[in-house]
Amino acid sequence: MSQNPIYIFDTTLRDGEQVPGCKLNTKEKVELALALEDLGVDIIEAGFPISSPGDFASVEAVSKVIKNAIVCGLTRAVEKDIDVAANALKYAVRPRIHTGIGSSDIHIKHKFNTTREDILVRAAKATKYARNLVGDVEFFAEDAGRADNGFLARLIETVIAAGATVVNIPDTTGYCLPHQYGEKIAYLVNNVPNIDKAIISCHCHNDLGLATANSIAGAIAGARQIECTINGIGERAGNTSLEEVVMVIKQHEKSLGLYTNVKTQKLNPVSMLVSDTMRMPVQPNKAIVGGNAFSHSSGIHQDGFLKEAITYEIINPEEVGAGGSKIVLTARSGRSALAHRFHKLGYEFTRNDIDVLYQQFLQVADKKKEVEDADLLLLAKAYSPVEA
Amino acid sequence: MSQNPIYIFDTTLRDGEQVPGCKLNTKEKVELALALEDLGVDIIEAGFPISSPGDFASVEAVSKVIKNAIVCGLTRAVEKDIDVAANALKYAVRPRIHTGIGSSDIHIKHKFNTTREDILVRAAKATKYARNLVGDVEFFAEDAGRADNGFLARLIETVIAAGATVVNIPDTTGYCLPHQYGEKIAYLVNNVPNIDKAIISCHCHNDLGLATANSIAGAIAGARQIECTINGIGERAGNTSLEEVVMVIKQHEKSLGLYTNVKTQKLNPVSMLVSDTMRMPVQPNKAIVGGNAFSHSSGIHQDGFLKEAITYEIINPEEVGAGGSKIVLTARSGRSALAHRFHKLGYEFTRNDIDVLYQQFLQVADKKKEVEDADLLLLAKAYSPVEA
Repeated sequence: MSQNPIYIFDTTLRDGEQVPGCKLNTKEKVELALALEDLGVDIIEAGFPISSPGDFASVEAVSKVIKNAIVCGLTRAVEKDIDVAANALKYAVRPRIHTGIGSSDIHIKHKFNTTREDILVRAAKATKYARNLVGDVEFFAEDAGRADNGFLARLIETVIAAGATVVNIPDTTGYCLPHQYGEKIAYLVNNVPNIDKAIISCHCHNDLGLATANSIAGAIAGARQIECTINGIGERAGNTSLEEVVMVIKQHEKSLGLYTNVKTQKLNPVSMLVSDTMRMPVQPNKAIVGGNAFSHSSGIHQDGFLKEAITYEIINPEEVGAGGSKIVLTARSGRSALAHRFHKLGYEFTRNDIDVLYQQFLQVADKKKEVEDADLLLLAKAYSPVEA
Repeated sequence: MSQNPIYIFDTTLRDGEQVPGCKLNTKEKVELALALEDLGVDIIEAGFPISSPGDFASVEAVSKVIKNAIVCGLTRAVEKDIDVAANALKYAVRPRIHTGIGSSDIHIKHKFNTTREDILVRAAKATKYARNLVGDVEFFAEDAGRADNGFLARLIETVIAAGATVVNIPDTTGYCLPHQYGEKIAYLVNNVPNIDKAIISCHCHNDLGLATANSIAGAIAGARQIECTINGIGERAGNTSLEEVVMVIKQHEKSLGLYTNVKTQKLNPVSMLVSDTMRMPVQPNKAIVGGNAFSHSSGIHQDGFLKEAITYEIINPEEVGAGGSKIVLTARSGRSALAHRFHKLGYEFTRNDIDVLYQQFLQVADKKKEVEDADLLLLAKAYSPVEA
């Protein structure tokens, strides 16, 4: 089976930055953009140039320093927005304009107060206008997750005919189940006559905790670009986590027949940089990049892990730049983890010794959250070996 | 279409508590168990009684206070563990013992150093032994996610014949893709002759960010119990998030034909209680219970949201006890959000006024993370209306 690429479209600097407390200045955006390029993402969405003079300056500055990745700017389907974006991107080696409009009846009625036919006209017009300014135009069909598939197919056909090189099918509100989102992409693959002229992109939100699964379902159905952010940050419950989709694809590359260009060993360093710069904490139990993602604390798990790491670990922490796996000693730890730690501290005990020491260890552990090496050294020093 | 129940098996106090820093004393476990019962979970896994004297005491204390939910204790497939668990559960109105053993060849070889045939014998023996002590016995087939489906089916048939009332199919390492996990459950439904005599349970881990999607895929395929924790805490990247599976099922109840007994408006209060008690922070972009889960900050989203909330919000925050949606003003906000906030502050401006004020607002916003009411009041007071 030949392997197909999945292009990673990072929107940490645009959708991720649209979060209370995460706003970045130009210097910070440039620093993160360089880190993202170094990580190996294919497209960097740098901002929404018309939104403020500061963001225009940031997109322009990012355009100047990025040499390999595509640099993308967001616009509404409005000529003024597109002019400003093209201007902000004028120094980019590989510029892309990302324009679009609502596609669900909810958005068409409540947000635009218009008709489906008018949406088709506005979408085609904006796409053509953008293609006259740059060679790479991505169109987003906002709220596609709740859009009628028949209308969505007409809209996508229209914008591809108007020059769109990438068509983005956002589940804007994080509503879809994975099989529903996969079926939507498959419907477009099968019902849009000119679909082979564009790349289909997944842009999923995590309101129900399904963004990663939805993006993968989209890729299985034929999408070849995934839009995501470092640490899954973004509006409300955030966007698809870059580190999760990249590692799902890597873990299952054979069965999926897919790969990405991301250098996975840089995932944890970039995660920390984004968390620090945006002042947005990552919870300890976050997949791939959480502080505990590779910690084993229960006795059953520690015993199995020490016999053979793959019993409880599918990803080698070094593969994602997370340092070594950690064994944390608590009241749920077992004898084998205790003996292992004593060994590391320079003490060799017999099985009988460990049986006695383990009871003492549990008394300490029931009083403390985590038993530290200093506690163990006290136990070891006070201990008199069991008579044989 | 008739609705089927999904039983919510909460393991915050067992798998969730197996986390560095999360260990609870007896008083804390009792407090959380009462909150979980009040939330409406069907089963509370209270601990692993043989692991330490402190945990035995906690399971016993929880058993005494819980009146409606089933109280469950974990064991290995070892008689001593099962005796101790039965003893810890002796005051429970509805006790359940949760016993099990490895089912993947990786676990059978590296952890147990034995054969598939021996695993069948030990599994049946432990299940029978437990059923002699309590009427409700759940069997877990550890690492079922990576187990051979043919052997797994034999194992499940064996333990149901031995008296298991619930059969738990854990994706212990968080390895499966949703369609793979769903196919595994469907395989058991179709290939275990006595499967109708037990409830199938999903127990998924979140190492690749897929635990919620996998659990839902399992339920679609016929599982009727989901094991999960508040805030998705647990070993490594954690377990399935209770709040996510419950809200996926509620949002899609018609198409899934499923429901739970959870009182969703208590999700956020219980999330906060667990986070505080376990000293385990929830990241702002966590689905359903994150601090930003219902915050709208970009101009496009705020404009749509203010016209009609459903444009960008599928869940009413009050439905999950999260208070009202928040509009946060930043450099990515638009004119309509600004006008709305001025209105709330008692100022009515014309469109022309807002155009001028918006430029002043952006200058403040480019310098600050979040524009506060005090900033807006300064702008409003200093403003001279545009001449008509």
